[in-house]
Amino acid sequence: MFASRTLKELAEYLGGRVVGDENITVNGLAPLESAGADKITFLANPKYANKVAETGAAAVLMAPGGEGYGRNIIEVANPYLGFAKLLTLFYTKAHPPLGVLPEATVGTQVTLGEGISIYPGSYIGNNVTIGDRSVVHSGVVIYEGAVIGDDCVIHANAVIRERCRIGNRCIIQPGAVIGSDGFGYAPDGTAYYRIPQIGIVVLEDDVEIGANSTIDRAALEVTLIKRGTKLDNLVQIAHNCQIGTDCMIVSQVGISGSTKIGNHVTLGGQVGVAGHLSIGDNVMVGAQSGVPGSLSPNAIYSGTPTMPHREWLRAMAVVPKLPELKKSISSLEKRIAELESKFAE
Amino acid sequence: MFASRTLKELAEYLGGRVVGDENITVNGLAPLESAGADKITFLANPKYANKVAETGAAAVLMAPGGEGYGRNIIEVANPYLGFAKLLTLFYTKAHPPLGVLPEATVGTQVTLGEGISIYPGSYIGNNVTIGDRSVVHSGVVIYEGAVIGDDCVIHANAVIRERCRIGNRCIIQPGAVIGSDGFGYAPDGTAYYRIPQIGIVVLEDDVEIGANSTIDRAALEVTLIKRGTKLDNLVQIAHNCQIGTDCMIVSQVGISGSTKIGNHVTLGGQVGVAGHLSIGDNVMVGAQSGVPGSLSPNAIYSGTPTMPHREWLRAMAVVPKLPELKKSISSLEKRIAELESKFAE
Amino acid sequence: MFASRTLKELAEYLGGRVVGDENITVNGLAPLESAGADKITFLANPKYANKVAETGAAAVLMAPGGEGYGRNIIEVANPYLGFAKLLTLFYTKAHPPLGVLPEATVGTQVTLGEGISIYPGSYIGNNVTIGDRSVVHSGVVIYEGAVIGDDCVIHANAVIRERCRIGNRCIIQPGAVIGSDGFGYAPDGTAYYRIPQIGIVVLEDDVEIGANSTIDRAALEVTLIKRGTKLDNLVQIAHNCQIGTDCMIVSQVGISGSTKIGNHVTLGGQVGVAGHLSIGDNVMVGAQSGVPGSLSPNAIYSGTPTMPHREWLRAMAVVPKLPELKKSISSLEKRIAELESKFAE
Repeated sequence: MFASRTLKELAEYLGGRVVGDENITVNGLAPLESAGADKITFLANPKYANKVAETGAAAVLMAPGGEGYGRNIIEVANPYLGFAKLLTLFYTKAHPPLGVLPEATVGTQVTLGEGISIYPGSYIGNNVTIGDRSVVHSGVVIYEGAVIGDDCVIHANAVIRERCRIGNRCIIQPGAVIGSDGFGYAPDGTAYYRIPQIGIVVLEDDVEIGANSTIDRAALEVTLIKRGTKLDNLVQIAHNCQIGTDCMIVSQVGISGSTKIGNHVTLGGQVGVAGHLSIGDNVMVGAQSGVPGSLSPNAIYSGTPTMPHREWLRAMAVVPKLPELKKSISSLEKRIAELESKFAE
Repeated sequence: MFASRTLKELAEYLGGRVVGDENITVNGLAPLESAGADKITFLANPKYANKVAETGAAAVLMAPGGEGYGRNIIEVANPYLGFAKLLTLFYTKAHPPLGVLPEATVGTQVTLGEGISIYPGSYIGNNVTIGDRSVVHSGVVIYEGAVIGDDCVIHANAVIRERCRIGNRCIIQPGAVIGSDGFGYAPDGTAYYRIPQIGIVVLEDDVEIGANSTIDRAALEVTLIKRGTKLDNLVQIAHNCQIGTDCMIVSQVGISGSTKIGNHVTLGGQVGVAGHLSIGDNVMVGAQSGVPGSLSPNAIYSGTPTMPHREWLRAMAVVPKLPELKKSISSLEKRIAELESKFAE
Repeated sequence: MFASRTLKELAEYLGGRVVGDENITVNGLAPLESAGADKITFLANPKYANKVAETGAAAVLMAPGGEGYGRNIIEVANPYLGFAKLLTLFYTKAHPPLGVLPEATVGTQVTLGEGISIYPGSYIGNNVTIGDRSVVHSGVVIYEGAVIGDDCVIHANAVIRERCRIGNRCIIQPGAVIGSDGFGYAPDGTAYYRIPQIGIVVLEDDVEIGANSTIDRAALEVTLIKRGTKLDNLVQIAHNCQIGTDCMIVSQVGISGSTKIGNHVTLGGQVGVAGHLSIGDNVMVGAQSGVPGSLSPNAIYSGTPTMPHREWLRAMAVVPKLPELKKSISSLEKRIAELESKFAE
């Protein structure tokens, strides 16, 4: 079981303020409806504010100024963030340092940091560097010369190809592929001639890559994903792309070659982005949209081809009425023709 | 080679009825055109009924009441199902129990059933349970505490993460990932703070998962796929989803977090479903559709955003004519303006 | 470092012609802007023709007839192809033959060619054949009876299932799955009965498969990908499909069962193709399109459902104006009604 904490300790950890008894202890987090007397709960969505009155929890995490119904409260500016932090505090723990386990294969001139864990069945090629406390799960294959930073978790059966570089605190979900060959061929008139992809992939710090996502190495230089960006599962990033900081790339998005994505960009699920484009900072693109051209910053877009999101909503509202509009036009044509003929009489 | 069977035996196995010589033997199944005299063939599509006259097969599996052209017939209510059952009978066999093969890694406190096969290069974490006759192929990684039922086949390089639970007779195709972390982050104003995903995935009995599909573990509780549901390749199921019984989820579908799908639902290829929705029983959604809101049961939908399928067909028929309709409207405007001016004279 | 070459040698290798000093040597290839005096550069896009004047490179690869600004030139008909060939010459080398490395698992009756490399942690089933100089990376699983040709590279954690056949010079990127079970089930009224998929996958020579792509084995016979066709990452090919020669299938495309694709077909990213269709030779389909029916050869299509590409462009240009058109129609109706009533007076 995880350790108990007083509300005082939790408030300090969260940068919040206790309203009520700060010496109460809790040993975990649970939803408003199901929390017992040894748990803290949280109110992130104001819609459920009245459930605070009835919760069985010992304390409630909520935004300042809410109705507390006399409960013990920890007030924090961002209760959803507080919820995430308490989950981390109560339910996660550092991976114990296991070292290189038997049946892992480690090449020559490999540099391993302190406190690492390399599981059986993983393969670490020659000249690889792995930073402190990083965990390499079973079935992971790291090709020659790759560099992994500190505090990374590389989950089972992920592949990191030659010379790619992963920053600190990166998490790679199972089956993800970093550094596969970019899809580049020169037509020779009849067949396709393979263009060697001699570049690499660089993931900066705090990047996370979803399960079975694929990130192609650059043709000549670097496919780059900047600090803090998160990719969901089954995402495709083509060669030479550059993705900014703190982007959210939702599942099954595909980004074509050499496109540059700004900072704080959100791409909804299954979005496709054409190649050689520039997507501005703080752009949001709605799910399933197809982006054929560059997008200005600080705006929301949807549709295939993309247009401003509100415009798209209005246009889509008309689509089901198209057959009716077509009929109206035919009917108008007849009526006008009739008027015209009458007028000509 | 596989054993020969009399038509009588086959009719009993299929719950059908022989018309003709029930002592004839066959040793396999082949298409109408290519079947030889030692094979049974099948008529599943009435379009090909006249080929029954000319087939070289020893016997024909068909629905009751069809024209038999004097052939030996096994009548069954559902010949396509009969075809599947005969394929199973003639061409599949139980995996021989190989035990734990050398070079498989098995952790501590692992419970292994009778008649299992654990291939070289697989990794079974501590406290894992694997049921009777289940097969774990090479490169499979099963994290700590996972539970696999009886008669499962886990194909090469699939990954099952910690504490996930797989029912009986489940088939996991190569590279599928069960229990990757859900895509959950709390924005802290500038960056994203990772929300620990402490829940699990549960697959009930007879669930099948396609190659390289990904199913995220729940944030707190369970991502659930109920009995008999089949997922095709490269499907994404986000955290906290619940999928009903006997659904068909075709390739490259993506279902966002916390959505509930009813029973007997079919989602066509590349469909995207938004989060926190409810999709009713017996719904069918056409390929590539985007589902932004909940859908009522017992209906067919298409489009992005989805609408009733027939409505979508009618609307889509108008789309190529839009430029022409736009011109018609301009032309009408001119004609009306002219009439108006004439009338005003 | 890679070896130096004279311009004369390079011109012979490329089938080009030197203009200038053919005895100059270079040791690599670099872009116009950054090339040093020991490098050759290339002009593939005429837009950058004036950069030839200022490049620091020792020589320039370009099409015949361009302005050479007095530089040493190698003229070739297709400079982009020449660029690809020089990259190959300078920056790639044959994989050294490592043999079967320790900790690879090789079954019985396996036939291994000359000069192969089988990495640790790979699994080669019984009765597998692997041709000369082929490389099998770590974590690859090859099931019983599969056949791999000469000069293939099977990257880490790819899976090739039983009896599938891979031609010569094929490249399989990490995590790709060849021969997973086709998605075939016979409804038995309530549940789905699995149809055994007893066929195979055949990849002809020079086929390349992207990372985490999935190609299902046929139900009865063969899923076939013909010579020279390239698949990008995360592509899904369903059972019984046949793809012609020299096709380009871009990332995240999904092709449904039993569809036949002609030769030299290009499918843009995220395209979906329905089952049992025929796509003609030299067809191009724009990204994200949905193909519901067969397509005639030698044409470009876009949209869901697909239409001729130019028609689609014109129709899509109208979509954002739909709300305005709807208003115009309403307004016209009022004006006509008014005219009609006036006329009736």
